[in-house]
Order: sequence, then C-alpha cells, then structure tokens
Amino acid sequence: MDQQNDHQSPPDDLHQILLLRPPPVFTIHEHYFSNKFHILKAYESPLPTHDFLREYAQSVKVVLCSAARPITADIIRELPALELVVSQATGLNHIDMAECRRRGISVTNIGDVFSDDVADAAVGLFIDVMRRITAGDRFVRHGSWPVSGEYSLGFKLGGKKVGIVGLGNIGLRVAIRLDAMGCIVSYTSRQQKHSTTFTFYPNVLHLASNCDALIVCCSLTNATRHMINNTVMRALGKQGVIVNVARGAIIDEVELVKCLVEGEIGGAGLDVFENEPNVPKELFGLDNVVLLPHRTGFTTESFHDAAQVLLSNLEAFFTNKPLLTPISSEF
Amino acid sequence: MDQQNDHQSPPDDLHQILLLRPPPVFTIHEHYFSNKFHILKAYESPLPTHDFLREYAQSVKVVLCSAARPITADIIRELPALELVVSQATGLNHIDMAECRRRGISVTNIGDVFSDDVADAAVGLFIDVMRRITAGDRFVRHGSWPVSGEYSLGFKLGGKKVGIVGLGNIGLRVAIRLDAMGCIVSYTSRQQKHSTTFTFYPNVLHLASNCDALIVCCSLTNATRHMINNTVMRALGKQGVIVNVARGAIIDEVELVKCLVEGEIGGAGLDVFENEPNVPKELFGLDNVVLLPHRTGFTTESFHDAAQVLLSNLEAFFTNKPLLTPISSEF
Repeated sequence: MDQQNDHQSPPDDLHQILLLRPPPVFTIHEHYFSNKFHILKAYESPLPTHDFLREYAQSVKVVLCSAARPITADIIRELPALELVVSQATGLNHIDMAECRRRGISVTNIGDVFSDDVADAAVGLFIDVMRRITAGDRFVRHGSWPVSGEYSLGFKLGGKKVGIVGLGNIGLRVAIRLDAMGCIVSYTSRQQKHSTTFTFYPNVLHLASNCDALIVCCSLTNATRHMINNTVMRALGKQGVIVNVARGAIIDEVELVKCLVEGEIGGAGLDVFENEPNVPKELFGLDNVVLLPHRTGFTTESFHDAAQVLLSNLEAFFTNKPLLTPISSEF
Repeated sequence: MDQQNDHQSPPDDLHQILLLRPPPVFTIHEHYFSNKFHILKAYESPLPTHDFLREYAQSVKVVLCSAARPITADIIRELPALELVVSQATGLNHIDMAECRRRGISVTNIGDVFSDDVADAAVGLFIDVMRRITAGDRFVRHGSWPVSGEYSLGFKLGGKKVGIVGLGNIGLRVAIRLDAMGCIVSYTSRQQKHSTTFTFYPNVLHLASNCDALIVCCSLTNATRHMINNTVMRALGKQGVIVNVARGAIIDEVELVKCLVEGEIGGAGLDVFENEPNVPKELFGLDNVVLLPHRTGFTTESFHDAAQVLLSNLEAFFTNKPLLTPISSEF
C-alpha cells in the first residue's frame, strides 16, 4: 500500500514525466531530468506496460519518448490526461501524429540540434564509401598490406553529381559541405527551394537519373516510404552510391541489398535500417558498404544541447510558456 | 649474345625508361607507357639490380621511380647518363635531391593531380575518427548492435579548432573543406600565407597548444622529420586528434603509439607510417584510430590524370620541350 502510494504521488512537488523506454539523451544525462522531474520509468517496473500505464492514466500529462518505443494510438488512448509528447528525435515517424492531432496533444521534436552532426556524418559516410576508408582500415588491421600488392582504387569526389533527397535542415547542410568539396549538387524536395541555386528535380527518379550518388535526408512519411525503390536504384546505375542518414524505410531494403549484392549499384553508406537494430546479414561481407548503428547525430556536444532542448520544452509546458520546438499540426 | 643485344638496344626507336620498381600508376596504366617507350624493368630481370644497372649505364637517361624504391645517391652514381627522374608522388623524400642537384639531373613530381583526393580523404579520416565511423561499422558487422545497449558518443566537428601542418596545395584544400563544416582553422607553414585569413602560428607547438586537432599535410624534410613529437602531442591534449596524410616520419611513431595506447591523445587517422607497409600492431586493437594503406590519393580519376602527367613529362624531355611539373632546384 505504501509502495503504491509512493508510485502514484511524487515524493515532492515535482511534475511527472512518463518514459516507456529511455531515449539515449536521457540515459546519458538522466541527472538533469531526475533533479527537476519525477520520472515514471515503465521500463524498470515489474508491471506489464498496460498495467503500468493504467496506474498513472489519470495523472500523466507528459511522455518523453524514445524512437525505439513508438507512441502508438493504443498507448495514447491509455493516457487520457496526456497533453504533450516530447521527442529527442528530428524525425517523428515513431509517434502517431494523427492521433495526437485528433486529441489536441502537442508534440515537440529536437529542432536543429543534431543537424550539423548528421550532415557531417553523412559526408563522412559518402567519403568513406567513395574512398574505401573503412575497407582500407580492415585491410590494414587484417595484416594484408605487407602481403598483398593489390591497388584498390576508389573514386574521386570532385565533379561527382550528388543528389540530396530532401533539402531540409540536414539536406541543406550536406549540400553546402559537398559543394565545398567540388561536387555538383542537386536535390529533390516537396517544394523547390528558391533560396538556393542548387538544381531542383521534381522527383527522386529524375534526380537519380542525373546523379552519381543520392544522399537521403528527408522525413519518413507515407509519401516517402520505399521511395528509393528498384527503379530509382537502377536509374542511379552500377557506379551509383546511396547514403541514408534519414530512416531505413525510405529505401526498399530488400531491393537495396539485392542491388548491392548483384552489383546493380556501386555502394552504400547506411546509418539507418528498416528493422533496427537488425541489419541484413548479406551486407556484412561487402567491402563497398559502410554500416552505422543509427548514430549520425550522436556526439557529446549534441547530446548536451539536446538535453537542454528537452528540458526547456518540459519546463515551458509546466509553466504554461510557449514550447521551444513544437511540431506544427500540419506535419 | 642476341639476348644481350636485345637488352641494350630497344626493338625499335622507342626511348628507354628505367623502372627499378613499378609505381602504382604504371601498374594500372602500363599500356599507356609501353606503347610509347621501351620500358627497362629491373624488377623482372633475373640480374641483381647492380648488374642490371651496369648493363644500361651508358644509355639510361630517364628513371620513372616508385616511392617504395628510393632513388639513392648510390643508384644515381651507377647511372652516369641519367638526366631525368620522374616521380608519380607529390612528396619527393624518396629521391636524393642533393645528388640530383649536384649532377644537374632534373626531377619532376606529379604536380597537383592528387591534391583534391588527398584533401578529401584527410577530411574523411578526420570525420571518421571524430564520429567513430569505422568503429561503428565494426560494431554493426560484429553483430553487437542488437545485443549491446551501449551508446558510444563521438565528438562534434563544428567549432573545433583544427590546425593544418603545412598549408600547401593539399593543406589549403583541407582548410577550405573544414571551414565549410564549421571548424575554426589555423595553420603553421614555412612562411605565413598572406593570401588566406586563417590564423598563422609560427611553429607546430604553438599550433598544437591552440588546437583540438592537427592535420599533417607538409613535406617530409630534415626539418619536419619527427616534428610531431611527444611534446607536441601532449600540447594537443587528451582529446586531441591527429590526422596524417603526408609522410609517416613527420610524426615520431613510437611516441604516437605510446600516446594513443596510454590515452595521452584522443585518436588518430593515419594513411602513412614510418616503416611502410608495416603498421605498429599496438594500433590494431584501438577503436579510436583509423588506418589506411597509404592511398589517400588513389582514385580511378587521379590515376588516369597522373598517367597523363607522367607521359607529358617524359614526352617533353625526349622532345626537348619544357617539363610539365619540374621541381625547382631550391627544393
């Protein structure tokens, strides 16, 4: 009984924040949050999630969510007092936005905090695939250099036509970086961006037909799911390189693996996958792919900044001030 | 006797080019050369090098050399008719320049052909170390992602103070690329370059003391050998990163390995080593280093361009025209 009371009422006047699963920024900087809020950790409770949610159903106004544990319509329905979903991600495909809109629940993302780091890592993946850096590192560590006279040539970046898929906060930063390296940058996006001089193509197939590489930087929505399909990959061609720092499901992963294994495209740098943390095993033996565990935004500095954005949104909510990084209801 | 005659006189009027060992560009594009010149391949002869050289001593005017087989004073002395040494490298530490000067032998390097590619790969190595791309790829390929909840954070590039050691053709290109990524670039060089606004430091110790990372892009000379020593590394500090795309011996490698193993610096991206192709084995187990087999200039496109520069220099020499990329005698 005591324990139940302890569960239902915070030990002092701290506001409740529900976590179904801790997002990485919380894991690293938990003390920032636990000093200011009463954290309800569903993932540490012996109760099944459903029972845990029912216990706090009337009091929980805020969920801090992790991309690894989607906020589905079912979960939202179990929380009738919910008013705010706070995400540490840039993309919000793990939140049922339609249900949030219907219920008038506010949603915040992380804003621009990760954009520079994701753009840097996208460029890093692109250089890595083109210039075979990770493959070269394996070659040296395996002790092959002194015994093999083979010269494995990569490809020059300068003069390559690179298509940015989605010229938002991240895509634009990638474009600027590649432009400085002498790449010829073009893009496709929901609308043409008149603030840039990069060449616009109305769709990804046109873009792929005119490019040596695609860097995928757009949101995952119903319109972009499997947008990079077999036709697009064949249009990119046998030397073509794909980098994905957005969401795995924007690419038809089964087709991507097939194209890579069969040499229908030239290589790939992938931070994201359709069924994370599972990566298609066929990729593990390929030297022309570079594989990251969804962490192009993961730096010490961005995590510190992200924690501040999360805290600012939470504090704004509880003091009835404007949210720092709200997602507009048209999203 | 017939065979000896065949050795001494080319089968037709093609000019002789001596190769002690084939440089990579020659290996890939041999047909370009063998169509135009009579190639004397010391490395395919059953004769010891000394005997082979003696056989052609009176006729060989041109050596096409490989960085892996230095042109020493001894070799030059065995070739009294030598007038030109053609190198496919940018740096010329593998040629005894003093002996060439004394004898009035011309030397050509490869000019600017590799500069963009080396700069791109230097940036790739820097991003890779800072953002742990190669380490992340290993993590995924080893199947660790689904079983390990560990979040390994890298470091942001934006705002980092990066020092370029040697602001020549390559260093300047690295500087421009890192500037576009939001790094704060400074440099040291033999002289201050008044054509740039990057901050100049008069020596590498001052540079290291004021930087988070060093990118080594200078020539290897007596003045730069072991210039990056223990004192410089300690000035760079425990988070400091070193990238070397120049020559291994510019860094005191024993001290570098010690600093990396003991955590006295934060990481390194190394394309070059003191005793290539041997790489210190202590580095193979480290996740904060990226190791390449001296190939930051190795692209299909640069090798094609390099072959053209080599051929142009050879043709210019044999037609008494000005060399395309001569090294000044003050080098």
